[in-house]
Amino acid sequence: MAENTVLSNTEYKVVGTRPIRHDGTDKVTGRAKYGGDFQAAGMLYGKVLRSPHAHARIKSIDTSKALALPGVKAIITGKDMPVVQKKDASNGAKTASEKVMASAKVLYKGHAVAAVAAITSHIAESALALIDVQYEELPSATTVLEAMKDNASLLHEDMTTNELGEKTTKHSNIATHFRYELGDVEKGFAEADIIVEREFNTATVHQGYIEPQNGSAFWNADGYLTVWCSTQGAFTARDALATVLDQPVSKIKVVPMEIGGGFGGKIPIYLEPMAALLSKQTGTPVKMAMSRAEVFESTGPTSGANLRVKIGANKSGKITAAEAYLAYDAGAFPGSPVTMGAQCMFSPYSIENMKVDGYDVVANKPPAAAYRAPGAPISAFAGETLIDEIAEQLGMDPIELRLLNASKEGTQRLESSPFPIVGNVETLEAARDSVQYKTKLTGKHRGRGVATGYWFNIGMQSSAAIAVNADGTVSLVEGSTDIGGSRASIAMQAAEVLGIPAEDVRPSVVDTDSVGYTFLTGGSRTTFATGIAAHDCAQDIRTKMIQRAAQIWDVSADDVTLADGVFKHQSDPDLKFTFKELAGQLNRTGGPISSQVSVDPKGAGSAFATHVVDVEVDTDTGKVKILNYTAAQDVGKAIHPSYVEGQIQGAVVQGIGWALNEEYRFNTNGAMENSSFLDYRMPTSLDLPMISTIIVEVANPGHPYGVRGVGEVPIVPPMAAIANAIYHAVGVRMNELPMSPATVLEALWAKDGEPANLQAAD
Amino acid sequence: MAENTVLSNTEYKVVGTRPIRHDGTDKVTGRAKYGGDFQAAGMLYGKVLRSPHAHARIKSIDTSKALALPGVKAIITGKDMPVVQKKDASNGAKTASEKVMASAKVLYKGHAVAAVAAITSHIAESALALIDVQYEELPSATTVLEAMKDNASLLHEDMTTNELGEKTTKHSNIATHFRYELGDVEKGFAEADIIVEREFNTATVHQGYIEPQNGSAFWNADGYLTVWCSTQGAFTARDALATVLDQPVSKIKVVPMEIGGGFGGKIPIYLEPMAALLSKQTGTPVKMAMSRAEVFESTGPTSGANLRVKIGANKSGKITAAEAYLAYDAGAFPGSPVTMGAQCMFSPYSIENMKVDGYDVVANKPPAAAYRAPGAPISAFAGETLIDEIAEQLGMDPIELRLLNASKEGTQRLESSPFPIVGNVETLEAARDSVQYKTKLTGKHRGRGVATGYWFNIGMQSSAAIAVNADGTVSLVEGSTDIGGSRASIAMQAAEVLGIPAEDVRPSVVDTDSVGYTFLTGGSRTTFATGIAAHDCAQDIRTKMIQRAAQIWDVSADDVTLADGVFKHQSDPDLKFTFKELAGQLNRTGGPISSQVSVDPKGAGSAFATHVVDVEVDTDTGKVKILNYTAAQDVGKAIHPSYVEGQIQGAVVQGIGWALNEEYRFNTNGAMENSSFLDYRMPTSLDLPMISTIIVEVANPGHPYGVRGVGEVPIVPPMAAIANAIYHAVGVRMNELPMSPATVLEALWAKDGEPANLQAAD
Repeated sequence: MAENTVLSNTEYKVVGTRPIRHDGTDKVTGRAKYGGDFQAAGMLYGKVLRSPHAHARIKSIDTSKALALPGVKAIITGKDMPVVQKKDASNGAKTASEKVMASAKVLYKGHAVAAVAAITSHIAESALALIDVQYEELPSATTVLEAMKDNASLLHEDMTTNELGEKTTKHSNIATHFRYELGDVEKGFAEADIIVEREFNTATVHQGYIEPQNGSAFWNADGYLTVWCSTQGAFTARDALATVLDQPVSKIKVVPMEIGGGFGGKIPIYLEPMAALLSKQTGTPVKMAMSRAEVFESTGPTSGANLRVKIGANKSGKITAAEAYLAYDAGAFPGSPVTMGAQCMFSPYSIENMKVDGYDVVANKPPAAAYRAPGAPISAFAGETLIDEIAEQLGMDPIELRLLNASKEGTQRLESSPFPIVGNVETLEAARDSVQYKTKLTGKHRGRGVATGYWFNIGMQSSAAIAVNADGTVSLVEGSTDIGGSRASIAMQAAEVLGIPAEDVRPSVVDTDSVGYTFLTGGSRTTFATGIAAHDCAQDIRTKMIQRAAQIWDVSADDVTLADGVFKHQSDPDLKFTFKELAGQLNRTGGPISSQVSVDPKGAGSAFATHVVDVEVDTDTGKVKILNYTAAQDVGKAIHPSYVEGQIQGAVVQGIGWALNEEYRFNTNGAMENSSFLDYRMPTSLDLPMISTIIVEVANPGHPYGVRGVGEVPIVPPMAAIANAIYHAVGVRMNELPMSPATVLEALWAKDGEPANLQAAD
Repeated sequence: MAENTVLSNTEYKVVGTRPIRHDGTDKVTGRAKYGGDFQAAGMLYGKVLRSPHAHARIKSIDTSKALALPGVKAIITGKDMPVVQKKDASNGAKTASEKVMASAKVLYKGHAVAAVAAITSHIAESALALIDVQYEELPSATTVLEAMKDNASLLHEDMTTNELGEKTTKHSNIATHFRYELGDVEKGFAEADIIVEREFNTATVHQGYIEPQNGSAFWNADGYLTVWCSTQGAFTARDALATVLDQPVSKIKVVPMEIGGGFGGKIPIYLEPMAALLSKQTGTPVKMAMSRAEVFESTGPTSGANLRVKIGANKSGKITAAEAYLAYDAGAFPGSPVTMGAQCMFSPYSIENMKVDGYDVVANKPPAAAYRAPGAPISAFAGETLIDEIAEQLGMDPIELRLLNASKEGTQRLESSPFPIVGNVETLEAARDSVQYKTKLTGKHRGRGVATGYWFNIGMQSSAAIAVNADGTVSLVEGSTDIGGSRASIAMQAAEVLGIPAEDVRPSVVDTDSVGYTFLTGGSRTTFATGIAAHDCAQDIRTKMIQRAAQIWDVSADDVTLADGVFKHQSDPDLKFTFKELAGQLNRTGGPISSQVSVDPKGAGSAFATHVVDVEVDTDTGKVKILNYTAAQDVGKAIHPSYVEGQIQGAVVQGIGWALNEEYRFNTNGAMENSSFLDYRMPTSLDLPMISTIIVEVANPGHPYGVRGVGEVPIVPPMAAIANAIYHAVGVRMNELPMSPATVLEALWAKDGEPANLQAAD
């Protein structure tokens, strides 16, 4: 039943086609250079000593025995961090530094306390065991509920809650409390005929990228630092390194290696500053890489959360009010994505009265990092479950209820201006009209669930450079690291402007010294913003080539056009050049043609997704099987539909894992118990059906081809859609993630009673 | 007595200062990455089997035994070259291919016949001995005189002489005969009161760069080839590889590694195509590097030559006519620099009647490559010796004679338009007024020589890109490989435009995929042409930043200026930003600022140099000692005077080596006998005095700061200046290079008779 559908209403020559990606051969043959491939003469290997405690004061660190181990070249501790040594460091810099390495307190198991550089990685690892750290252990909290208790042990003793914009004097683990409001929720609930209110909890989950973090560094004697790493943003990594190392950005060159997945988790820096400082001490390049356990325990997963949501509607199905309480844990330092969760959760709906209270709460876990549409899947799990419940209570089709309330151009939303042109309605209609939704689901313990997701998408700064080659191809230089096929999707936009095939654009992702500033690959911005940079740069190349043709022909440039890869004079049919012919003449008719353009586009278009999932629940084991899955999404314009489909399918798979299995399991000491891929269960292809995609194209007016970001919104609906499907299969409303076999079974037993044979066994 | 003088009449903030070069630390600490540092996983090592014969037909090549050697992965021979296998290859491509590897005939000892890739370089070397090549030996000629004999063995049986523009049917080793004429030489000689006519011979000499050629390659399964090499021009190497490998340029990426000297000799490709083909066969990166003997025997030295020159002057010293016969050997394939020798030799003089006949002659030597002002030092050696002889005969000071006849703006010259503004007269005057020239030289067997040199310099295509960093610095990307400090000299021109220190411009030399087309580093073009690209790009950045400041202030850009690194509003003193302040605001006021510019400037300014040398001749041994040396030169504008002085001093040292010691010595079988630095004697610092330089600045109107190329012209005068000094020391006119102890002694004996004690020993 699986199908990939593209509902397109625009036609281009290159945009919308499916050429082979430029980096495909490198990737499938193993020739692409990842951080693990970094080599340098005389290179040292760095390893990190990490806290065994979830919360403790560092009383002393004795590195003398480790330093005496033959082959050990340098050891640093948190006190060696430049920001710690700087008297007037900003609070932001201090936090950034402590995230990299603890100087006084460890705030989670896995928090870095020392790093060793040695001539082999084995010696470095041996040296770790010789470092004597004396700790004073403190009570810890690994969930938001524990951390918010009045008597909770404080991670940051001097932290006071920012209570609705005002600094209070109350010391707690709550970093921020904010409120977003629209209309009058009391009035709205008063107008409601039905009101549903529920509480939800979600577990901490990890992005689970296949390539562990790595970072190699060489701090040259002239003060210039070069860092090779796996990062979503070479320039943002440079910015972060500049802060943590107290250096101007131009003293740092970040060379982005290929990246084996990021999903937001490869935005922060972890090993890079340690490798840099070890290199500075030794005068030698230092290479570092994490184990999988380090990735789980010491890089940023996304938040666990506690949520309470209340939605009211009148009998006709019109939602009259919505209210939410969102408490997200941020891990050890403030900065959970709760604001984004708050902004996104009710955005699929036109609701006159809304209120969201958000809490950013620190807990003894690795600091939360971005994870695909950060914050939105958590709040959507709660909100979309309630929408389903309202539809059920009103006896309405869940998509029809959504269509009735769907946000559209002009709809007011929280903390933002009214919606511009969006494709929410079109996406809902596409899901409604899909083969899966129109096919009746039959069978015991089977159910269908629907959910809608929203992500705002971002713009930000991007740069691209193009140079014309004599053989009629062009070289394209970009600063965006390519995680999901963006070399292709950006090159195709340049090709479209120039009227040449995608294969004739040769994209290169270069280091921070070699192109203009480019914000990170994330926020679903790359194909949009770097695409605009490439488009605008190609326009400049096009203009210059038209001028050159005009100069060669001794005519006015106004009379020369470029269409279908051919430069023509408007009235003289003898005057024409193919792109290749003109390219071959550039060097002898005035010189080469090249250009570079930087942009900061503001017109990122919002994205909506509606997913339909069919599940079957094994009521004996609680195991949920995904039978069918259809994901409809407004992508604005799919530059390369295959990679858009891949983004959607990949996000759905991550959502299924988040929904059914993934969670950080902590023991009572706050230590993660399942920090391996054997115990942290992510879905494999054997667990899944083929996922059908429906690409809906409602062009974003803020992009020349109508592009909207596509990578994040498809992870927003799956958890709620699956929870709703489980309800329709077996009649239990799930309010906890993951909906693992144990959790589902408990819910079934709570509804139907524990089976007699198991009661006897109790 | 040594001094470095700068005669400057323009003042800039950055241009003309002497900052530390950006790549200095990397170079002195050994961290700079040369081709020898290339490493790749699973890399193979390539070695080349070379002809032991100077001239032979290849009857057969049996590689079976070598291929059977364990560890050998691939072997190629000349027949595997794509051009050889292609039916419709152009003659140019065929010649380029045969230069890399012989397919039917070997034309010099050292001509490549096969190449092996193996898992170690030792196995590759062992395999060479197992390749069985059967040759049919042919007579050889290693000098132009031998090669031009009627019965000489023909290198290219089908080659007919191009006789004064007309193809003739005469088969010979003369590839081309051309004639440049101005006025009526017969009339000019008739007007002369004195006529001097002499014959000269010069030996083949090598550039002697410290780093041997290297080339590593990986031919990817997707058809894209990457080459890492030591080259003067990444883009020209790419062009050459495209021709030889029969590929479009965009399928090839050349990564220029640091270069340990080139002087013209690192323009051609040698190992790169072989490494590429071995990589294609094996699917693995292949690394190759030459030994010093291979560098001497198998890369391009410059021509040996036979010259006859005749100059006439009237009694007042006015030169009435000049005529020359120049026969340069090109090595095994046509293409000696005889045309350039012909264009340059009389250019320091305003002569109404001139004629030069030039012959390009093939001989059984490695094909001539460019060597610093290619062709000009050879012809200047002859011409400037005659000028000295005329001055002597007329009893005139040699500089006064030159001043009397000096070419200047408007002077007609051979094969070119009349001179634009040039600094010939100013340079002669600077030499005349130098401390050395004004100091009387005393002592036995001591003499002073003067000579003037000319080089036209070139422009050609260059590209540069600039991006502004948030900390107020800028990144500069360029395609010119940096041989003599051009990172600094190009960065300084951008810094001057932007009003920031040279250190705040961070230059990067990037690969051919990452910047617009840039012609090679040579022709004394880089600081001129790539400097213009950087200047123009900086102007664009400046314009964009002024616009941004105006936008932030909400004023007209016309009212905003940038001076001394500060943006100011013309009338409102409150409106100002330092460069750094504005740079820090770019990302949030409209986005980053970057630019790329490509140029093909036509205004390269000609360069003149006049050198004064004092020598002492040991009449017992014939050894010539350089006592004092002053080199005056019109550089237009010295961007970084230290590197200009370094260029001048380095060129003089090479000229002294060429004058006194360097030569390819061939045995009767045409094999080079002295292919090591022990036997091929280049000057060391112990052989030389400090060389005084006088930088003369007559601004070139074709460059925004007046730059003329500086690197080549200072190698033009030394040989003649030293020959003239020897004459004035011991009374013998030298007409042969090198003027080695043996040659000088023979000349002394020819003049004074062989000493009696030696006659007895005969």
